[in-house]
Amino acid sequence: MTPLAIEWIWPDTPLAILITLVVAIAGRWLLLRAVKRGTDLAVDRANQRRTDQGQDDAALYAARHSARAATMGSLLRSVINAAVAVLAVLTVMAILNIPLTPILASAGVGGVALGFGAQSLVRDYLSGIFMIVEDQYGVGDLVDLGEASGTIEDVGLRVTRLRDAGGQVWYIRNGEIVRVGNKSQGWSTATIDIPVDSSENSTRVIEVLTGICAEVYADPEWSQVLLEQPTVAGVQSVEAGRMTIRITARTAPNQHWRVQRAILDRELQALKDAGIKGPRMLPTPPPAQ
Amino acid sequence: MTPLAIEWIWPDTPLAILITLVVAIAGRWLLLRAVKRGTDLAVDRANQRRTDQGQDDAALYAARHSARAATMGSLLRSVINAAVAVLAVLTVMAILNIPLTPILASAGVGGVALGFGAQSLVRDYLSGIFMIVEDQYGVGDLVDLGEASGTIEDVGLRVTRLRDAGGQVWYIRNGEIVRVGNKSQGWSTATIDIPVDSSENSTRVIEVLTGICAEVYADPEWSQVLLEQPTVAGVQSVEAGRMTIRITARTAPNQHWRVQRAILDRELQALKDAGIKGPRMLPTPPPAQ
Amino acid sequence: MTPLAIEWIWPDTPLAILITLVVAIAGRWLLLRAVKRGTDLAVDRANQRRTDQGQDDAALYAARHSARAATMGSLLRSVINAAVAVLAVLTVMAILNIPLTPILASAGVGGVALGFGAQSLVRDYLSGIFMIVEDQYGVGDLVDLGEASGTIEDVGLRVTRLRDAGGQVWYIRNGEIVRVGNKSQGWSTATIDIPVDSSENSTRVIEVLTGICAEVYADPEWSQVLLEQPTVAGVQSVEAGRMTIRITARTAPNQHWRVQRAILDRELQALKDAGIKGPRMLPTPPPAQ
Amino acid sequence: MTPLAIEWIWPDTPLAILITLVVAIAGRWLLLRAVKRGTDLAVDRANQRRTDQGQDDAALYAARHSARAATMGSLLRSVINAAVAVLAVLTVMAILNIPLTPILASAGVGGVALGFGAQSLVRDYLSGIFMIVEDQYGVGDLVDLGEASGTIEDVGLRVTRLRDAGGQVWYIRNGEIVRVGNKSQGWSTATIDIPVDSSENSTRVIEVLTGICAEVYADPEWSQVLLEQPTVAGVQSVEAGRMTIRITARTAPNQHWRVQRAILDRELQALKDAGIKGPRMLPTPPPAQ
Amino acid sequence: MTPLAIEWIWPDTPLAILITLVVAIAGRWLLLRAVKRGTDLAVDRANQRRTDQGQDDAALYAARHSARAATMGSLLRSVINAAVAVLAVLTVMAILNIPLTPILASAGVGGVALGFGAQSLVRDYLSGIFMIVEDQYGVGDLVDLGEASGTIEDVGLRVTRLRDAGGQVWYIRNGEIVRVGNKSQGWSTATIDIPVDSSENSTRVIEVLTGICAEVYADPEWSQVLLEQPTVAGVQSVEAGRMTIRITARTAPNQHWRVQRAILDRELQALKDAGIKGPRMLPTPPPAQ
Amino acid sequence: MTPLAIEWIWPDTPLAILITLVVAIAGRWLLLRAVKRGTDLAVDRANQRRTDQGQDDAALYAARHSARAATMGSLLRSVINAAVAVLAVLTVMAILNIPLTPILASAGVGGVALGFGAQSLVRDYLSGIFMIVEDQYGVGDLVDLGEASGTIEDVGLRVTRLRDAGGQVWYIRNGEIVRVGNKSQGWSTATIDIPVDSSENSTRVIEVLTGICAEVYADPEWSQVLLEQPTVAGVQSVEAGRMTIRITARTAPNQHWRVQRAILDRELQALKDAGIKGPRMLPTPPPAQ
Amino acid sequence: MTPLAIEWIWPDTPLAILITLVVAIAGRWLLLRAVKRGTDLAVDRANQRRTDQGQDDAALYAARHSARAATMGSLLRSVINAAVAVLAVLTVMAILNIPLTPILASAGVGGVALGFGAQSLVRDYLSGIFMIVEDQYGVGDLVDLGEASGTIEDVGLRVTRLRDAGGQVWYIRNGEIVRVGNKSQGWSTATIDIPVDSSENSTRVIEVLTGICAEVYADPEWSQVLLEQPTVAGVQSVEAGRMTIRITARTAPNQHWRVQRAILDRELQALKDAGIKGPRMLPTPPPAQ
Repeated sequence: MTPLAIEWIWPDTPLAILITLVVAIAGRWLLLRAVKRGTDLAVDRANQRRTDQGQDDAALYAARHSARAATMGSLLRSVINAAVAVLAVLTVMAILNIPLTPILASAGVGGVALGFGAQSLVRDYLSGIFMIVEDQYGVGDLVDLGEASGTIEDVGLRVTRLRDAGGQVWYIRNGEIVRVGNKSQGWSTATIDIPVDSSENSTRVIEVLTGICAEVYADPEWSQVLLEQPTVAGVQSVEAGRMTIRITARTAPNQHWRVQRAILDRELQALKDAGIKGPRMLPTPPPAQ
Repeated sequence: MTPLAIEWIWPDTPLAILITLVVAIAGRWLLLRAVKRGTDLAVDRANQRRTDQGQDDAALYAARHSARAATMGSLLRSVINAAVAVLAVLTVMAILNIPLTPILASAGVGGVALGFGAQSLVRDYLSGIFMIVEDQYGVGDLVDLGEASGTIEDVGLRVTRLRDAGGQVWYIRNGEIVRVGNKSQGWSTATIDIPVDSSENSTRVIEVLTGICAEVYADPEWSQVLLEQPTVAGVQSVEAGRMTIRITARTAPNQHWRVQRAILDRELQALKDAGIKGPRMLPTPPPAQ
Repeated sequence: MTPLAIEWIWPDTPLAILITLVVAIAGRWLLLRAVKRGTDLAVDRANQRRTDQGQDDAALYAARHSARAATMGSLLRSVINAAVAVLAVLTVMAILNIPLTPILASAGVGGVALGFGAQSLVRDYLSGIFMIVEDQYGVGDLVDLGEASGTIEDVGLRVTRLRDAGGQVWYIRNGEIVRVGNKSQGWSTATIDIPVDSSENSTRVIEVLTGICAEVYADPEWSQVLLEQPTVAGVQSVEAGRMTIRITARTAPNQHWRVQRAILDRELQALKDAGIKGPRMLPTPPPAQ
Repeated sequence: MTPLAIEWIWPDTPLAILITLVVAIAGRWLLLRAVKRGTDLAVDRANQRRTDQGQDDAALYAARHSARAATMGSLLRSVINAAVAVLAVLTVMAILNIPLTPILASAGVGGVALGFGAQSLVRDYLSGIFMIVEDQYGVGDLVDLGEASGTIEDVGLRVTRLRDAGGQVWYIRNGEIVRVGNKSQGWSTATIDIPVDSSENSTRVIEVLTGICAEVYADPEWSQVLLEQPTVAGVQSVEAGRMTIRITARTAPNQHWRVQRAILDRELQALKDAGIKGPRMLPTPPPAQ
Repeated sequence: MTPLAIEWIWPDTPLAILITLVVAIAGRWLLLRAVKRGTDLAVDRANQRRTDQGQDDAALYAARHSARAATMGSLLRSVINAAVAVLAVLTVMAILNIPLTPILASAGVGGVALGFGAQSLVRDYLSGIFMIVEDQYGVGDLVDLGEASGTIEDVGLRVTRLRDAGGQVWYIRNGEIVRVGNKSQGWSTATIDIPVDSSENSTRVIEVLTGICAEVYADPEWSQVLLEQPTVAGVQSVEAGRMTIRITARTAPNQHWRVQRAILDRELQALKDAGIKGPRMLPTPPPAQ
Repeated sequence: MTPLAIEWIWPDTPLAILITLVVAIAGRWLLLRAVKRGTDLAVDRANQRRTDQGQDDAALYAARHSARAATMGSLLRSVINAAVAVLAVLTVMAILNIPLTPILASAGVGGVALGFGAQSLVRDYLSGIFMIVEDQYGVGDLVDLGEASGTIEDVGLRVTRLRDAGGQVWYIRNGEIVRVGNKSQGWSTATIDIPVDSSENSTRVIEVLTGICAEVYADPEWSQVLLEQPTVAGVQSVEAGRMTIRITARTAPNQHWRVQRAILDRELQALKDAGIKGPRMLPTPPPAQ
Repeated sequence: MTPLAIEWIWPDTPLAILITLVVAIAGRWLLLRAVKRGTDLAVDRANQRRTDQGQDDAALYAARHSARAATMGSLLRSVINAAVAVLAVLTVMAILNIPLTPILASAGVGGVALGFGAQSLVRDYLSGIFMIVEDQYGVGDLVDLGEASGTIEDVGLRVTRLRDAGGQVWYIRNGEIVRVGNKSQGWSTATIDIPVDSSENSTRVIEVLTGICAEVYADPEWSQVLLEQPTVAGVQSVEAGRMTIRITARTAPNQHWRVQRAILDRELQALKDAGIKGPRMLPTPPPAQ
């Protein structure tokens, strides 16, 4: 270490300080701009994708967009401001020859000691930033986040809040979400398994079922949520005393439960009316969900 | 290393020490203020959210707020005081040219060696700080923390204490809580599955069930905990000898168990009175919980 | 590296050594005092909590308190003494200009190499320290530590020793304990599921059961362990041929097994006497535990 | 540290700066070219493989190729530009003798602290880059990624987006994908298990089944999706009252579900016509999927 | 780096070397003594505990003690000798001004690279040292180590060797043992579940069972292994057609299997003789183990 | 840092550069040769092993050998070239006194930050290199890699590609493969469980079964794939109404499925012909696979 | 950094180089000898243990010993040679004042970056070395390594190769083996569960069974593999309609399967002859394995 003395060499020292400050301000401006441009670009791409999928609920997505921008902006501005300020102060101290070793060494030790414990915190924030930029889900979407499923109530940088079907509120750390299943984009599929006696003629059963499918699709109550006429896929499996016929239908998002119940009810009535026997007494697993 | 000598260069050395102390005191003041402001902001946002959800039990949340503020304050003040003091002492020693290498190197080795083992400790505290600031749950809430479910008795920075339905007290490290399910915010859903013989007419069964639902909702005993009239969702599944009809009801938080038992009892009585046969003898899984 | 020579500059070198020793002794005294004060504070808070819960078995907790203080004190004193001694020796060597690089570098390499393997050891000790300070459990408590359940025999800094119901002694590393379930604080809940034939009138069954509940609560043998009269919760589930009625009772800690067996026996006798049929022949799962 | 002074030694300093800039520009050019060449090579190998497998849908793969190249190019160019710029600026600052210690030390501390949390982010990107270069799947492929299965909608550098059979959209981080199962390359296998009474003669049953297999393969509707005539593998298992015969068929990719249903239906009809009894009443597991 | 020259400054260099060697020898002696004292202390505490539990098989534990001391001593002496030797050689080289940078840097790189891979090795040894010092188990004990259960054949510093009931020899790395269940300390519990017809009178059945319990306890063959008279706990569960009565007995360590079989056999004979019907035909789970 | 100046001291500087370049070229040559020799040695050992196992399909393994050598060579040459070039350039820069601190520090920070995320990448490559050198499997082998089972289509340095029985193509990262099960080396075992009525005489049943085993082994169709005559192992288990006899046979690799079906079919016919009753009606688990 | 110049100070520089080389050669010799001595010692201890267990197949273990020594020797010699050579070259370069910073820094960055990915590789080798030295298993032993069970075909430093009962060859990385179960040392235990009707007299059944046990033990065919007469343990469990009696027998290693089948067959014949009824029709779990 050099002999301790606050050296003040005119005009080098003030000049170096000046350069440092100018670089700091310019660097901060450039960083903020780069972040803003990157975020805008990613958000635009996400919006473009939504539009491509024919989801043109423009007002909804505009509101979400500005909310996302606000969430992102405040965090990144804080981080950049703090980093630039710390660096500028430390550099000026170095120019003035004040010993930095204790500060830097302590920061190093503390950084390592904290780094291990804080890694899940950092991961939570990084995951949150990317999920918000990529617009994987928004408030009101019905999602499956692995830890819990339900309707999104809040999309934060560290935690996501959702409410499940039972009314329970879930706080999930973003870094724990390894995959997101969004049920509110596009369509859902209803699957109905109809059990009949294995001695019935499969061709005739399929005819009856297909008739009801057409009837349901013609019903104005259901034609709104059905994106296409339900299809009888055919004989799914045969067991002693039971044959299972599968029907599938593409519905509006999250309407498949209602559709499944309605079609199941109608088909069973129709089979009874047509005199087709139900399965002999053996338990059946519940329909595929 | 420079020749060892405690150099005392007038007036540079005392001046440097003075500057160091001033910076330390100012830095400590700024840090404490930044932490306080950040915490207040986060707490205000959490309170705002509660108010938005129509939970305006102001006195309860004011009490919780001050408890949280006290818990947070003591920890952060201790940490900041210790950090600033250590840095100031080390810097003054560096200015006086006392060799710091042994201290810093030992701290480095110790920091790394401890850092690995202490990471879960740091994670516990960081998780605790964020959960308290975000107000994910408070004393008295019924929560599901993954490791255990029950009523919160104490929200600490390192561990959360709760008591489950069986009376057992659980101490859970905050860092082990990857998701929080809070059952005391908003509402709960009761789900009742009614089994009847598969030969019964589903329309008629649903009529009977719907009548009882209206009756229950009109009953003053239940109308308080029922947020809306129970709904008969329709035929949930059909098996050999058994048809299951599902009823759902939105209730006050954590009242769904009582409601499920009451509705199940009444509906079964009503079906018996209406002469509708129960399922033929096959075991049924318990109602969805 | 400077030319090697043990430099002895009068009076700087002895002065620096003196300052170092004074600082070391003062630092050690301060650290010991801070640790003692912190531990006392935490222990006081834990005791206060116990008192708040109405657990005023003062003698028992005083004994536990002093045992905990002794366990903690010996470890922390050893660690602080060793750390201060090592630092003082190294600093004096640095002042005497003896080369420290080999020692520090070796310590660094060894520290990293050991740090990875020793992290679970450090975690065990840190967990032990906090569990002792927070008084999560003491000798004689019945606990569930995840790896094993039983009665605590010894609370150590690295391992906890307990004995399970089968007589097996378990040694559990404190760092592996992610949550502690303490069954010896407050109360336990007994849950009894009574199966009857599904054709029985539920109202009548509940009347009979409630009568016996009152009888049991009046019985002096059971009124000591029952904290309140057992409650008939209502119809828990209905299946083909079987209806299940649930009874719950709050008991003294860990008395619920005895209570469950006694109430089950009495209720079944009472139902037989009242002529209420048991379930038709279908297996029932064992009562909730 | 040397006495602080911005030293400007003519002509060494400008010369050094000049050399630095030239090296930076040359290095950037070389890196970009190396990356491009490496990527092209890997992509060519992947295309070659596709061609070797007889998948000569040239237009489709050309479109995919350019999409992949665009995705890769933008990221790598950004990374290389940023890295070269930072290095050049820092080197010039070092040549001008501006103190770099604070910047480098802060970057080191920050790098370590972030490194722990960001490792899953880096892993996601690295996985994405390799999966794109190796062309493991493309938009429209039906894949099993472990976390979810469905049709690929977007192949990103950090996340892959796919839509499952139920209409749910899945966002999966590339680093979480440990193995990829691509169902759209080559062929699929249909497996049909035919249950008959265990007292039937297996040779005769196999004769009947083989006849229908030939019939199906001759049917123009199915001969397109069947890559070869379905094979009767023989008696798969025998249980009390039931013998199972297995049929396998190689089909066009993802057509095996349709083929299974059709063959199952026809074979059962043929067995009924041939008077071969079905299994006595025992539940059968569903056919292998 | 200073100009290279092996500097030999009389008398400083030999003096420094002399001091180094004296310190090394003294340090080694102190470390060996500290380790020995610490180990002795821990072992004494473990022995004290055994004595407190009334396990006064002094000869057995003395033999174990010396075996443990030998195992520990050889390892720790080797480690301390190697560490002190390396440090002394390096310090002398530094005093002689031979460049240490390559050695230390290589050791650093190698230490980090090895450290990651060797961490489980270090963990195995550390776990072994602590388990031996704490005397968690010894040769001949019947233990449950998670990975395998059986009789200990060898307690090593890295691996423990045991033989299970089937004769298989297991080598288990000490670091993989998160909890130890030692079945050879104190006592075991036998649990016998007696099934009878659910129509039997529970009071009478319990009387019969209690009679046999007293009889068994009076039998000299069993009174040696029974630490107390077996207890009839009461009605454990009731199902359609079956009532289960539980009997528990505290036995000498690992004698509970024999006791369970003997009591089960006698109780069933007694129930037959008393004309109490067994359960109607429903499968029962095997007795609790 | 020394005063900045590109020092050019004749003739030391050019001499040092020359030495550096010579060492670089020599080092590269030595490394390449060492790698080549090591790889050849390992491959030779693997080939030797194959030959020892009597797998002398020389042409096949020669082709595999050259493919493996090509895969390995290109990677290792690239890595060694890049490493030597970087080191040479940096050393020349150091000789010319250009400041390296920024480059090295940035590389350090980047290396750590990337190292965490890239560790699975490095692991994949290292695993791939070793699996190729050890020749654990080759194109065309039927393997079980844990994540998926099937026929190897490509053995890469980072991923292995295989196709399962259902036609699905799997890409598996080499680092995720913890154990390899190769089914194409040596032989397979067929296991057939024959169920008969528990009242049958086991000796007679075994006689009948053994006769058919001899018959099958004499059949030219099967004698090619059977490496020895199938063995009747004896009574495997006895249950109420059913006795199971096990037959085992050693077959050519992956021919055991065909053999199992054929033997099962023949044995059942023979038992019917011999008038031995099948099991009474109870489900049987499928034969061991 | 000092002014660059290859300094050649006579006679210091050649002297330092000479000392370096002498130390390198001596160090290498000492290391090789220490490793050899340590390995021999460990191997001797393992052999001693085998002898103590009465496994005196001296020729077999001598062959294994030399194979192990060869495997270990080649690896350790290579590692020590490489390490000593690198250190010597670097030290000589340092003495000649050639700048080492680039090489060391690059090695550091590379070491860290590789260290993360290579840790499983290092772990594999370390585990292999210890397992070989401790002689946990050898070629021909029947072992359970967790990932797979079978007969060892090759014990390598990185992978172990074994072949399972089905003929499949398994390559298992040594570091993934957390516990080794060796079935070829000492003895195995056969366990046979005999089901009889629950109304049978247990004393009489046990008499019959014991008679057959004595008969089997007297049979010369079985007395070779039976290490002691099979023991009838007593009534293992009682269920509705079935009582299970357990027989255990200690056999030569891996002969217990054959013994179990033989005893089961004979006992069932004897029970039939004695007129003891089998269990009423309820499925039984397979015998304990």
